[in-house]
Amino acid sequence: MSLGMVNVANATPNAARALLKNARQQCDPVLRTAVGWLSEPLAKMAGYHLGWWDVNGVPVDGSSGKSIRAALAFGAASACGDARAAAPVAAAVELMHNFSLVHDDVMDRDATRRGRATVWAVWGETNAIVLGDALHALAGRVLVEMLEPEVAANAVMRLESSCVTLCDGQFEDCDFETRESVSVDGYLEMAAGKTAGLMGCACALGALAANADPATVTAMHQFGFQLGLAFQIVDDVMGLWGDPNVTGKPVGSDLARRKKTFPVVAALGSGTEAAASLAQLYGAEEPMSADEVRQAIDLVETAGGRKAAERQADECIGAALAALPDSARSEDLIALTQLVIARDR
Amino acid sequence: MSLGMVNVANATPNAARALLKNARQQCDPVLRTAVGWLSEPLAKMAGYHLGWWDVNGVPVDGSSGKSIRAALAFGAASACGDARAAAPVAAAVELMHNFSLVHDDVMDRDATRRGRATVWAVWGETNAIVLGDALHALAGRVLVEMLEPEVAANAVMRLESSCVTLCDGQFEDCDFETRESVSVDGYLEMAAGKTAGLMGCACALGALAANADPATVTAMHQFGFQLGLAFQIVDDVMGLWGDPNVTGKPVGSDLARRKKTFPVVAALGSGTEAAASLAQLYGAEEPMSADEVRQAIDLVETAGGRKAAERQADECIGAALAALPDSARSEDLIALTQLVIARDR
Repeated sequence: MSLGMVNVANATPNAARALLKNARQQCDPVLRTAVGWLSEPLAKMAGYHLGWWDVNGVPVDGSSGKSIRAALAFGAASACGDARAAAPVAAAVELMHNFSLVHDDVMDRDATRRGRATVWAVWGETNAIVLGDALHALAGRVLVEMLEPEVAANAVMRLESSCVTLCDGQFEDCDFETRESVSVDGYLEMAAGKTAGLMGCACALGALAANADPATVTAMHQFGFQLGLAFQIVDDVMGLWGDPNVTGKPVGSDLARRKKTFPVVAALGSGTEAAASLAQLYGAEEPMSADEVRQAIDLVETAGGRKAAERQADECIGAALAALPDSARSEDLIALTQLVIARDR
Repeated sequence: MSLGMVNVANATPNAARALLKNARQQCDPVLRTAVGWLSEPLAKMAGYHLGWWDVNGVPVDGSSGKSIRAALAFGAASACGDARAAAPVAAAVELMHNFSLVHDDVMDRDATRRGRATVWAVWGETNAIVLGDALHALAGRVLVEMLEPEVAANAVMRLESSCVTLCDGQFEDCDFETRESVSVDGYLEMAAGKTAGLMGCACALGALAANADPATVTAMHQFGFQLGLAFQIVDDVMGLWGDPNVTGKPVGSDLARRKKTFPVVAALGSGTEAAASLAQLYGAEEPMSADEVRQAIDLVETAGGRKAAERQADECIGAALAALPDSARSEDLIALTQLVIARDR
């Protein structure tokens, strides 16, 4: 994906990968403490979901996800002069993110995540709903157990507000599947809730933990928010043209489900001939065949959906970097920005 | 139900009813502010669940529930010298309770609550899960938006801890349905999580909001916790022998679902002939017929399950009152204790 006018070429994905690894390592003890607050059956499910052990509790080298939100919290805290302070907020954001994943999988009936069976697929829907609720509670509890009251109260407010927008976004995302037409603005509003809000929150909380002043906290939120919009759009692009080994889901699975992803929304609104054909495929009632999915992906590209998505992602990246105060324009944050754009490499 | 040796006869259910009404009235503006933080489709569902309007958003005189948790928060705050301070914590506890109800209805496939269709029955499971998540987030946000940071952080810790125990209890409650034998201790542990934890939290938060000292806050938690155990046991008794117009659910519906309620657990463990017959009914695979439900209720009574439940509830009420510091033994709290015992009148 092109970076447009934005110069983030000095930072390499390797540097970002090291940041992700470091974030995971620093979060891990906090997450394990928090999961320890659960009683046994729930703790086992939580550790399974987080990739610590298999369904029987036997330790495995599973994936706990990319931890990009945790890395953003550490990056923001570091840019504000105190990376070490970020562990509790990074863990809280990851708990919030993982709670939403556990519930999303129930709602979307997704049976696989990170290459393993999802929690509901193993323990049933009821237990997955309860586990998600518990992880949500742990997110708040981590903040108030591990931070000074003043910072904790502020962090809880931002985290729970982002949860409310997450719910709004989740509702719209589901609603979009049955709606005939969605505008680019409508899409961006949904993505703001579903993805950007929590990534903005991660950065704001990192700044908060490092005792940054309110203006910097707000700027960090804006940085993470715009980065989050780009992240979601890149995710959409990768879902259609990315490597399934990297995305972890079959090519076009969002499309087969008639999700209104950015490239699709832009393509449908392009007024081209390809848009009309695509609209017909999206309007049909029957499940899409593999052939139709391939055809639809081509139509999205022909209608300019891919280019429009790449342009929009570049725009969001530009807005993210513009939001960063000069003093906080750290190498780490630039590296994470680079990672969002170049996730497929 | 007998009150055993406990003398709470001076307080009448009428006084308690006035306390409930007052709690509802004082909570209402806070709840409406919080629901206003949601975007439109979720806000509409929230207000529907809370009995403010019908499915189309047209105001109705619906029931928002008994608000006993809110009344306990006000009662505890009042006993600690500042009833007016309790509105945010009372609203937060009600939001937490209502979030758990919305999810419980999804998990139990209950289509009716408070005489109306449940949220999932109207808007589907996915939206009900999202609404529950949003109400949970609002509970935390109300605390940090409306209280001083020090009190807010403490309140969030207690509220989210009670949510974790709620999840533990919910898990066990579901697990009990498929388990062959459950002990009285096992039942009490489940009820501690499912009901008593949040009622203890309501009282502790009321005391916290009124700036009570830590020892009083802990004592208030203990009072509410024991009262909550009694509440759940009385609930179980009413589910078998109560007036369906009061309970809002058909007689024996828990039993038909093979729930391990207190009277059933006690009856099954009684070693009587009736226990053996009851175990046979509970062990069968097929759904219970209406006749079998009636037969099972009789067997529970014959095996001493009802008496044991009433005795245990009395014991919990005694422990609740014993936990109250003399200075906090207010008429309001006694009236609410009375209400728990005499809900069916």
